[in-house]
Amino acid sequence: MQTPWDHRYAQRMHRMKASAIRELLKLVEDPEIISFAGGLPAPEVFPIKEFQAACNKVLVENGAMALQYGSTEGYTPLREMIARHSSRIGIEITAENVLITSGSQQALDLIGKVFINHGDRLCVESPTYLGALQAWSPYGAEYVTVRTDDDGMIPEDIEQALRTGPKFIYVLPNFQNPMGVSLSLERRNYLVGIADRYGVPIVEDDPYGQLRFEGEDLPPVEVIDARMRVQNGHYTGNVIYMSTFSKILAPGLRLAWVIAPPEVIRKLTIVKQGTDLHTATFNQVVAYEVGRGGFLDEHVKVIRAVYRERRDAMLESLEENMPEGVSWTHPHGGLFLWVKLPEGCNSTEMFPAAVKNKVAYVPGESFHPNGGGFNTMRLNFSYCNPEKINEGIARLGVMFKEELRRMQPVF
Amino acid sequence: MQTPWDHRYAQRMHRMKASAIRELLKLVEDPEIISFAGGLPAPEVFPIKEFQAACNKVLVENGAMALQYGSTEGYTPLREMIARHSSRIGIEITAENVLITSGSQQALDLIGKVFINHGDRLCVESPTYLGALQAWSPYGAEYVTVRTDDDGMIPEDIEQALRTGPKFIYVLPNFQNPMGVSLSLERRNYLVGIADRYGVPIVEDDPYGQLRFEGEDLPPVEVIDARMRVQNGHYTGNVIYMSTFSKILAPGLRLAWVIAPPEVIRKLTIVKQGTDLHTATFNQVVAYEVGRGGFLDEHVKVIRAVYRERRDAMLESLEENMPEGVSWTHPHGGLFLWVKLPEGCNSTEMFPAAVKNKVAYVPGESFHPNGGGFNTMRLNFSYCNPEKINEGIARLGVMFKEELRRMQPVF
Repeated sequence: MQTPWDHRYAQRMHRMKASAIRELLKLVEDPEIISFAGGLPAPEVFPIKEFQAACNKVLVENGAMALQYGSTEGYTPLREMIARHSSRIGIEITAENVLITSGSQQALDLIGKVFINHGDRLCVESPTYLGALQAWSPYGAEYVTVRTDDDGMIPEDIEQALRTGPKFIYVLPNFQNPMGVSLSLERRNYLVGIADRYGVPIVEDDPYGQLRFEGEDLPPVEVIDARMRVQNGHYTGNVIYMSTFSKILAPGLRLAWVIAPPEVIRKLTIVKQGTDLHTATFNQVVAYEVGRGGFLDEHVKVIRAVYRERRDAMLESLEENMPEGVSWTHPHGGLFLWVKLPEGCNSTEMFPAAVKNKVAYVPGESFHPNGGGFNTMRLNFSYCNPEKINEGIARLGVMFKEELRRMQPVF
Repeated sequence: MQTPWDHRYAQRMHRMKASAIRELLKLVEDPEIISFAGGLPAPEVFPIKEFQAACNKVLVENGAMALQYGSTEGYTPLREMIARHSSRIGIEITAENVLITSGSQQALDLIGKVFINHGDRLCVESPTYLGALQAWSPYGAEYVTVRTDDDGMIPEDIEQALRTGPKFIYVLPNFQNPMGVSLSLERRNYLVGIADRYGVPIVEDDPYGQLRFEGEDLPPVEVIDARMRVQNGHYTGNVIYMSTFSKILAPGLRLAWVIAPPEVIRKLTIVKQGTDLHTATFNQVVAYEVGRGGFLDEHVKVIRAVYRERRDAMLESLEENMPEGVSWTHPHGGLFLWVKLPEGCNSTEMFPAAVKNKVAYVPGESFHPNGGGFNTMRLNFSYCNPEKINEGIARLGVMFKEELRRMQPVF
């Protein structure tokens, strides 16, 4: 049906379409389908009792404040808690370096609104996080891509990309979405050095850093950068760092944060004010109440144990069920791994067959801003229990074997 | 301190500055100051017990869902509740016409992102809601203004404004922020007719419609428009309608909604996905739990009674304390009234003196997109109790008398 609004959409709408992931997430609602498609945390580990206690305490002791308007920067005790917490991974900041956002997606949107002019180039991994592309494309971003292998961004691609004069570099150093790989220490050092040499700043997106279940923690890119720059104890560096409560507490709260120099925080705050005024006060006060007193430290141990078990189940199951020619990453943390089929396979075209076989993934194509990745896919291992993981991977195995047989030349 | 980000801000940042209101809201934190500046609901009427019961019920019965990611459109039972509720003010819709947003501010931002190209003209009241200007200016909006009197937008200005070809008309028909005036029925009919004739759609912002404490409800602009257009029971009209839970439940939840034709909702949803993925699931489920079963109907009666008493206190106090030459609006609902000082007074320049006298307002200048209104100010009557209102207005009275004496020519 025609409405008077139809011919009035802004030009930026031509660059926007509903994402494949979004459409795929709807499939999760069919309980028959084993979905490796979403990026959902395991609901079994949500600390429901702690939330209940916190909601009660907050409403009884501080209800009028928790239900009222709040400041755009966020609830000060929560910002202070994040600042303290950050110092434990080497990021030495105070609350004035912290802006609370309505989920990481909003942090990406605000960064786009503050920094991106139409036609600006951004240096991103390929594949990279789809949500960042969805946040930045409406502002007219173009992408210069850097290939990624098991150690993250490939150095020779980085320098080539920086020569095009991008506005900033976007990197997910830990258990990257979608591949599950991490940027090695050597490459972190290289990235910070070359970004400095070319005068290009870095946006570091770290939603999964605390979910490592194997190997040693690596310093955030921000920390490596700050070591070169710290003046008078204030962070004045080349990196905007962002993280979230979605994976260590609960995504349904929509709580995340940005760490940046105070002047950048001020600009992001002005923009946030016009975007959603402030993040829900109640959620911030409740998250503070749940998180204070060290609960989160204990809680992430539980999450790590559960996800490790599920990753192991998926790796074993892949080993068992995948035909020759199929390979996959071995993540040391996070929520995702990445499967590569032989050249010529097309995971997007195979998708309807997968759904018919009651299993879902995200076709790798979606994560490649400038195309490619047709023979790849992202699998999530955090949401399904090991039994379901085995069953789902077995279903994929049958499918892939058929597909490869079909592709074989007939003699 | 210089950072590498300093010279990288997008061009749109030149059009953005922290708002006067925002800076003023910080004053509320000084307990000595009687603030008529914010738009804060009375915290005394927040239904804290009901929230507590709802949080407990939701977490016990449905915690895993309420803390998980949700769909961008919003929690379906809440969208259905809003659709049912809307039919009671004559807006006949289903859940597919409803998008849940993270407060009204986000609804304004999404509308801007979907519809506004750089340089687009928007037809707005002068004075109008500051938050709309803050949402739309970053997208490059220009404003064609329509003067407003005690019956809302002045008709002769509307036609003149429509001749400039604006993208849409923005109107707050009920107890407008900042003036507290309502658009008369006759002018609603006129607005809908002339908007149709010029082919210009309307954004109707109605945060206060339910907070009428005097006179008869008037049909929403959307309802008048829909009567001309309804096809097959689906809303296909010229109006995007928006409202919020901030004033009838609690602003700290950041929950509002947009009502529009399904195709417009789809566009807004795509944009919202890249902006904050979705509004906090927990808040939506809790608001649904609090709101179902008719609680809101009873609750708004309580709010109305409290606000009516406070408005009356303010009107009486103004009558008692204001010197000749000062006039003010007599709102039949909402949260604000509008004070006009004699020409030549400047409420922005008087502001530091007001703060020194421990009373705050918002200078009227801020609400005029193309300048003007120097001799006006917005007063909020919902936040302070009658005693404080009396004291605050008395302080303003003393100030204004002095100011007028100062301005008098010396013979």
